[in-house]
Amino acid sequence: MRFKITVEYDGTNLLGWQKQLDGPSAQEFLEQALFAFSHQKAEVFSAGRTDAGVHALAQVCHFDIETSMDCFHLREALNANLRILEAPVNVISAEQAGSDFHARFSAKKRGYIYRLLNRRANSVLLQNRVWWVPFPLDIEKMREGAKYLLGHHDFTSFRASACQALSPLKTLDKLEITRQGDEIIFEVEAKSFLHHQVRNMVGTLKMVGNNQISPQDVKTILEKKDRKAAGPTAPACGLYLNKVEY
Amino acid sequence: MRFKITVEYDGTNLLGWQKQLDGPSAQEFLEQALFAFSHQKAEVFSAGRTDAGVHALAQVCHFDIETSMDCFHLREALNANLRILEAPVNVISAEQAGSDFHARFSAKKRGYIYRLLNRRANSVLLQNRVWWVPFPLDIEKMREGAKYLLGHHDFTSFRASACQALSPLKTLDKLEITRQGDEIIFEVEAKSFLHHQVRNMVGTLKMVGNNQISPQDVKTILEKKDRKAAGPTAPACGLYLNKVEY
Repeated sequence: MRFKITVEYDGTNLLGWQKQLDGPSAQEFLEQALFAFSHQKAEVFSAGRTDAGVHALAQVCHFDIETSMDCFHLREALNANLRILEAPVNVISAEQAGSDFHARFSAKKRGYIYRLLNRRANSVLLQNRVWWVPFPLDIEKMREGAKYLLGHHDFTSFRASACQALSPLKTLDKLEITRQGDEIIFEVEAKSFLHHQVRNMVGTLKMVGNNQISPQDVKTILEKKDRKAAGPTAPACGLYLNKVEY
Repeated sequence: MRFKITVEYDGTNLLGWQKQLDGPSAQEFLEQALFAFSHQKAEVFSAGRTDAGVHALAQVCHFDIETSMDCFHLREALNANLRILEAPVNVISAEQAGSDFHARFSAKKRGYIYRLLNRRANSVLLQNRVWWVPFPLDIEKMREGAKYLLGHHDFTSFRASACQALSPLKTLDKLEITRQGDEIIFEVEAKSFLHHQVRNMVGTLKMVGNNQISPQDVKTILEKKDRKAAGPTAPACGLYLNKVEY
């Protein structure tokens, strides 16, 4: 039987989604919690392999186990065992899925948010939850620069060197920037993203906001198809996998 | 010279605002940070003595030191030293104040928010930031019950036995309850509060939301003037001192 679950995690002390030999991952915690009550070694597949330090508000996963449990009790058993493991991971919802459902390959759209704290003083309550930028950012200019990234482009300039995607061509469906109190929130959506694409776009748009480059420079950077042309990668702690649509 | 500062803290690992012999407090961290660069033993006074585990988004404090520093550099020096102390405290703003300003006695209104996470699954990202209530709460009934608490009353039923206030009479100016995503947010305002008053009101209104008592029972509880008549004290981790008006 195939189950689809929606998962939240605090990425601060995780090496990321994917199982690693040298430290904790969301995938390993979920597989351990699943084994603890089902005694079945099932692989847990996710919609996206988030990096070390990146959070998830609603990562979507699937796995196959034989069980007589209903979805409610499956979620409760997973959460009880995640707590025993002291995992920074919890399951928000669980449902049955058809055998043709695949968390990664069936996904039609992925949405991330990036939280940037834009005030002079840092915040102890938002530690590891936001990127702290202590100097003023011009949000209008950032929005102007963001327009050049929307749509179908070769995103080589915003792609990590370790990226394993076959093609640098991606379609960015949404990149909205809003101010909410002292925070600047980036909302991005696409069918899929290149490795570090969101963090590299945010890191570049922050340079626009700080007047280090102009909004029009974003277009030039995109056209150069050269990672060195864009800004630095924004820190992982501000990034949240927010939704996956099927 | 008198300075007024606005302070944020994560109360999770603090014994509260006030200096204690047996553990860390926001007051002690601020006084230590102040001494570290001014070499003056100044007492830091606050608008309210929050309890262990309670957070502050904007606690207001004052202190007197002799310095040639301007407010910008005073704040920077405080924050730099708070980081060295690994204090869960930071200073959002600093300004000069007249010698007649007193953080506690000049305050005209205090505002708190209480965050309650109302969904079946707990949240790792909101750990120590909300009170998790996993069963459904009827927000309309809670609002109906809250109406009886507004205005001038004897709040003995919502007062901790350790409360040192001279009178149990207080005027509650605001008690608004809203749903924001999976959270239920309580916004309360008054000139001042009794010890545990906000948490006892939230703990009682949660019983209304859960149909353990009726909205009208809140009126009866208030009239009984007996702490045992009201509900349990809501956990500290959901409470935030949100603003102080002068």
